[in-house]
Amino acid sequence: MKTNKKKIINDPVFGFITIQSEFIFDLIEHPFVQRLRRIKQLGLSSIVFPGVNHTRFEHAIGAVHLMRLAISGLIMKGIEISDDEAEAVTAAILLHDIGHGPFSHALEHSLVEGISHEVISLLLMEELNRQFNGRLDMAIRIFKNEYPKKFLHQLVASQLDIDRLDYLRRDSFFSGVTEGTIGSDRIIKMLNVRDDGLVIEHKGIYSIEKFLISRRLMYWQVYLHKTVLSAENMLVKVLRRATELVMQGHDLFATPALRVFLARKITKACFTDPTLGHQKNILELFVELDDSDLISAMKQWQYHEDKILSYLSGAVIHRKLFRIKIQNTPFSDKEITELENKIIDRWAMDENELGYFLIHDSITNFAYASGSDKINILMKDGNVREINDASDVNLSSLLQTVRKYFVCYPKELDIK
Amino acid sequence: MKTNKKKIINDPVFGFITIQSEFIFDLIEHPFVQRLRRIKQLGLSSIVFPGVNHTRFEHAIGAVHLMRLAISGLIMKGIEISDDEAEAVTAAILLHDIGHGPFSHALEHSLVEGISHEVISLLLMEELNRQFNGRLDMAIRIFKNEYPKKFLHQLVASQLDIDRLDYLRRDSFFSGVTEGTIGSDRIIKMLNVRDDGLVIEHKGIYSIEKFLISRRLMYWQVYLHKTVLSAENMLVKVLRRATELVMQGHDLFATPALRVFLARKITKACFTDPTLGHQKNILELFVELDDSDLISAMKQWQYHEDKILSYLSGAVIHRKLFRIKIQNTPFSDKEITELENKIIDRWAMDENELGYFLIHDSITNFAYASGSDKINILMKDGNVREINDASDVNLSSLLQTVRKYFVCYPKELDIK
Amino acid sequence: MKTNKKKIINDPVFGFITIQSEFIFDLIEHPFVQRLRRIKQLGLSSIVFPGVNHTRFEHAIGAVHLMRLAISGLIMKGIEISDDEAEAVTAAILLHDIGHGPFSHALEHSLVEGISHEVISLLLMEELNRQFNGRLDMAIRIFKNEYPKKFLHQLVASQLDIDRLDYLRRDSFFSGVTEGTIGSDRIIKMLNVRDDGLVIEHKGIYSIEKFLISRRLMYWQVYLHKTVLSAENMLVKVLRRATELVMQGHDLFATPALRVFLARKITKACFTDPTLGHQKNILELFVELDDSDLISAMKQWQYHEDKILSYLSGAVIHRKLFRIKIQNTPFSDKEITELENKIIDRWAMDENELGYFLIHDSITNFAYASGSDKINILMKDGNVREINDASDVNLSSLLQTVRKYFVCYPKELDIK
Amino acid sequence: MKTNKKKIINDPVFGFITIQSEFIFDLIEHPFVQRLRRIKQLGLSSIVFPGVNHTRFEHAIGAVHLMRLAISGLIMKGIEISDDEAEAVTAAILLHDIGHGPFSHALEHSLVEGISHEVISLLLMEELNRQFNGRLDMAIRIFKNEYPKKFLHQLVASQLDIDRLDYLRRDSFFSGVTEGTIGSDRIIKMLNVRDDGLVIEHKGIYSIEKFLISRRLMYWQVYLHKTVLSAENMLVKVLRRATELVMQGHDLFATPALRVFLARKITKACFTDPTLGHQKNILELFVELDDSDLISAMKQWQYHEDKILSYLSGAVIHRKLFRIKIQNTPFSDKEITELENKIIDRWAMDENELGYFLIHDSITNFAYASGSDKINILMKDGNVREINDASDVNLSSLLQTVRKYFVCYPKELDIK
Repeated sequence: MKTNKKKIINDPVFGFITIQSEFIFDLIEHPFVQRLRRIKQLGLSSIVFPGVNHTRFEHAIGAVHLMRLAISGLIMKGIEISDDEAEAVTAAILLHDIGHGPFSHALEHSLVEGISHEVISLLLMEELNRQFNGRLDMAIRIFKNEYPKKFLHQLVASQLDIDRLDYLRRDSFFSGVTEGTIGSDRIIKMLNVRDDGLVIEHKGIYSIEKFLISRRLMYWQVYLHKTVLSAENMLVKVLRRATELVMQGHDLFATPALRVFLARKITKACFTDPTLGHQKNILELFVELDDSDLISAMKQWQYHEDKILSYLSGAVIHRKLFRIKIQNTPFSDKEITELENKIIDRWAMDENELGYFLIHDSITNFAYASGSDKINILMKDGNVREINDASDVNLSSLLQTVRKYFVCYPKELDIK
Repeated sequence: MKTNKKKIINDPVFGFITIQSEFIFDLIEHPFVQRLRRIKQLGLSSIVFPGVNHTRFEHAIGAVHLMRLAISGLIMKGIEISDDEAEAVTAAILLHDIGHGPFSHALEHSLVEGISHEVISLLLMEELNRQFNGRLDMAIRIFKNEYPKKFLHQLVASQLDIDRLDYLRRDSFFSGVTEGTIGSDRIIKMLNVRDDGLVIEHKGIYSIEKFLISRRLMYWQVYLHKTVLSAENMLVKVLRRATELVMQGHDLFATPALRVFLARKITKACFTDPTLGHQKNILELFVELDDSDLISAMKQWQYHEDKILSYLSGAVIHRKLFRIKIQNTPFSDKEITELENKIIDRWAMDENELGYFLIHDSITNFAYASGSDKINILMKDGNVREINDASDVNLSSLLQTVRKYFVCYPKELDIK
Repeated sequence: MKTNKKKIINDPVFGFITIQSEFIFDLIEHPFVQRLRRIKQLGLSSIVFPGVNHTRFEHAIGAVHLMRLAISGLIMKGIEISDDEAEAVTAAILLHDIGHGPFSHALEHSLVEGISHEVISLLLMEELNRQFNGRLDMAIRIFKNEYPKKFLHQLVASQLDIDRLDYLRRDSFFSGVTEGTIGSDRIIKMLNVRDDGLVIEHKGIYSIEKFLISRRLMYWQVYLHKTVLSAENMLVKVLRRATELVMQGHDLFATPALRVFLARKITKACFTDPTLGHQKNILELFVELDDSDLISAMKQWQYHEDKILSYLSGAVIHRKLFRIKIQNTPFSDKEITELENKIIDRWAMDENELGYFLIHDSITNFAYASGSDKINILMKDGNVREINDASDVNLSSLLQTVRKYFVCYPKELDIK
Repeated sequence: MKTNKKKIINDPVFGFITIQSEFIFDLIEHPFVQRLRRIKQLGLSSIVFPGVNHTRFEHAIGAVHLMRLAISGLIMKGIEISDDEAEAVTAAILLHDIGHGPFSHALEHSLVEGISHEVISLLLMEELNRQFNGRLDMAIRIFKNEYPKKFLHQLVASQLDIDRLDYLRRDSFFSGVTEGTIGSDRIIKMLNVRDDGLVIEHKGIYSIEKFLISRRLMYWQVYLHKTVLSAENMLVKVLRRATELVMQGHDLFATPALRVFLARKITKACFTDPTLGHQKNILELFVELDDSDLISAMKQWQYHEDKILSYLSGAVIHRKLFRIKIQNTPFSDKEITELENKIIDRWAMDENELGYFLIHDSITNFAYASGSDKINILMKDGNVREINDASDVNLSSLLQTVRKYFVCYPKELDIK
């Protein structure tokens, strides 16, 4: 007997979202996707923007919705997309972020250092493909850009992909930074295909400029907000310290899955090595992780006897974050040394530990990178030109990489 | 040295919220309030409404915002409210829900059976009052309705309190059930005081009717949505089973705080008994609990050897919920017995265990209760009349208590 | 050569609206429909709600949009609707209000007394049908409820028609009375057909209750707002006085089309009598009228030598409106007589003129009328029940007709 | 006796707007301001964006609202603004656009050629100042930038004035071009004053970039939309032709006020010459004009015997607009001559008349002009730097003036 599947999803951003394909719905119900309900899209950003609790699941569903609009719009314009291709590209967008772990940026710099979430996404898609008897073959080829129709890959991963069209709109909505909103609907209406490449029809050019500037705004105002930056860097340090302690043989509270990740260096090879992780392989353990593993662990770690771990964990949990200073030029050695000395004085730390209390790094962002993955405009005369070439004005400013330097340290240092 | 406090909060529902009082800001920064960031306002409702991930923290901040509007509106109308009273009633609304635990309705029916969150809220306020040297005295008197100006208590707790004005608007926003939205701003503009009681000016009467009907809609469509009901009832069973197993001496994964609550019956007395809970008292342990304790535990319990615990935990985590049937009349004994027999057949359960797989209960809701806590209308002639008396139409329908009966059981039973 | 038709319309309420049928687009471009751009949907309501300047054109387009959603939803549920029927019912909803004149309620009580806008809509549809060579035959049959599939007529004209689903949402949007908003999308998703009648699926029942109560709220708070009522009643008096003066041979500024309507009593027969209105018949003149004819005339009339006409016209133009009192019981003869005497005293009016300065009438509204045109609910067991029967609660209150009495008179009378 | 003044205004964009000053409310009720209810903010743009029917009145009220927020924000930051100054700057923003006529851009290029609306605004403010016994003295000095505190003038008229903060947000709202929305609230929260000049605090810099790019988008996408451009240019031609005919002694339907403007060249001197315009002076006649005068006239003119007037009037009324071509380079003489010849062939026009059927012109826009009226940023170190200097990226693109060339002609020419 067929169970009655609920196929309409209420979304505060786009209203009712209808899932029309049964296969897509089966994927949504799979534990790998359901797990995304327990991972916040923007990690610790809710520390600054309390409304930012939306999950990677919501983003995945929103992207499926926009993909459906994009496909039907392209078909109406005469672009050939078969039913199988439509399903495949929809599956690809649904699953494109499936490899994200909890607080994933922090994670990628600590527990699974050197393995990007894209790699894990692909491993999980392949596992799903096994479970669904090869039905994801085409989706995987599109994801890996090995499918002949290249524009399908561009819908999934490019500088104007459906991913961004959903997340900028969604993150703007939940953060309350309304000015970051973009015209997703309009941009999608302007999509077309020329020479197997995605293009934007000419009259959509201002919407693209607007999209690029909104993205820039969202980066500096939300994603790289200084307090968020401080929190995320502290989280990396928490995980590094925990790993260090576990490897040294200390006992730390952790869920069984998290424990495995703390206990050894996880490399890409580990993910496919069946001898690790006891009964389960690393991939199986990875999909058991979500935000709750880290939160519940840090809540305990704040009482741990190791001062560094307890200080950092308590700080993240209770929002007593490091002071952070950001500037456009590097900090001088003198400034850094002065801070180091203060920390050594106050907490009697050695050289190796210093890095836990003094974070010194830089961040970069650019609105648009001109390169192989271009945003192309379909001019009124039928020619295709890159956005920075097609615009009325010189968009070179958006091509610039902006680098900022920051330093984080305990607030106690500022108190005389 | 004074630290630089961030006092503007971005809220997707109300825009910029300014926290004008330093004391209120200090309360917000207290771990007791920060903890609300880790507790979802609507518990498991996100299983049906994926956007519903907002937390009790956001609701508390939103309520502070609306309280400020209400107070300044009343003062402009000539109602006397001193600065101290304004601070106290604002503190009271900020803290009114502080005693909620994770998935609190489930909790109140399992771990801390028989202790309402209001009782715990009061215990926590009293603890805060100690920490802030009595500055919450007046807030507590208002909360307990022991303060002379009774209308202040009504702003915090009544059928038209600031609590509801925020949560209905907020829950409607995040669920995407836009038709549930209410005119919070308009209702607040219409507030006034007569004979020490909160009243609504006559021209706001349609907004009140609308508010009552929206509340009714939100109850049946969101809060008591049948799938949510199934999930929440299963969660109660999960916690009951876990408690039962721990008391029988089984070993279960749990955070240290959760373990204490599983290991013994918690009564109100326990909260103040210093001999329980090892170094910490029960209240201290309670505030360590949040959604992550239950999520991380259930993720492990799905692998437990106890079939009931593992079945139920896995079902809640992976959204493989019990079938639920709801109707306006009680289910017949015959129907129930039939379901019981099927369960016994299939899972070889005994009488005591049956209750874990067959949930049979009823729910009730009413839009408005006429009683001591009335919604009163200030008529154009200066008289005060209760809403159901003041309306043009007979509102008796809203006074009716609606009861519905439901039964939940494993979906496997429906498959022939 | 085919001209390039713009078929995407930007709508602030629903976003992008796509007009998919070329015939529907041709109708939209016809002067009869374009004229609706010059007639405000809510007449003089903008006197109270400054944002309420949306036109009957926008409403017509919005209704076309919702009709498309409704039709495709019904087809997906297996209801048979042919392409011709889809076009016809869409044309019918586009044209359903085409017979409205400027400030139409005022007009129906003055210039074209006794002829409803529905009658004129039908005359105009028939004229369009001639121009489009019979392509509107089916649309007209649906409009007149002479087409076999009765549910198509219900989509156009019933207590839950597409007309209301658009205008309640739209009027709420532009007035800023957000609490009046309705779940148009949800209601449309819940539409179904049983026994050739439109029904709402059971789980949409709370949305229907909400829809009815919102409609009630919009009536009393916006459409029948007391200041709007005063303004509209004054406008009726302006037009009556102007007619009276013109018939008496006075010279009044007026556009040529308006002049014809002022110069003689227009009956239904006139509309089809080719001997009236000089070269043009009355119908042709009628479609030349829009808000600008009345506004430009009243601006002149405020300087007319007739004191009554100049007083009333100036008052409407400059928003110096009559005082209005509304109550649930009739005004006593004594009150009325007292007001009459004051007016006679002050303006030396005779009996016949008194009615221009003292308006005494009543208004009624009901949320839902149980009768032949029912709102029916499709119960879970497959039965169909009327909304007031299907609801959990007694909705009798919504069936009540509410009558209110009002009196309007110059503000000068209140000044001692 | 004091009349009961309604001081809360429902605004769909900002919600409830409270008018706190009685004097400001009296100004709002004055016929000069009430007249703005009858003039659309964006003239003929509703031809493309049907929702764009908002009036100059709504914009003026919205600007008053934002000014109140700006003032109270600045006062909270310690900037000294007296009650009188607050009232004056609010009055100035309320009245800043009062001199706009109907379809004002068209008007400024036809009926009152060479007189900007700012000049007329000032004349009207001075007249109001007489009527209010000098109470507008300070407002006028601020408006004319003759008041010592220069930042007050900047709030009223500069590249980041309250005018733009309201109109960009409002026009985006009503047009449905949501991506044009700006963070008015955030920008206002970031306002400050240094050296008597308005500055934006550093962390608001991305909102300013966003504001500039949104303004650019709104210009090209809405204000200078090609169809709108065609309509507005045709309207100028309509009025020029009407003037020409009236001056030649032809009889044209027109309201009395419009007739005066058609019958002679209106210069600035005329506005103050008491011998013109019969009983009323030109200023008095000017304020009698609104959109209805032009609409009602054009509706008649479509039947006029002059072919040019009737063609153009009918085209504007019924939306049968000239074909328009826009490009970044000038049109060649050859292209223009070819079009001219076609027109002469088809309509047998002479040289003088040709300009009515062939419009050939250019438009320019720039996002930001660096000059005396700078947008200044208050850096974290306390220095003030101009926006294009303070930004992380090179904003030179926004300083570029973009010029586009267009040509409009009857669509008949394209049909073979």
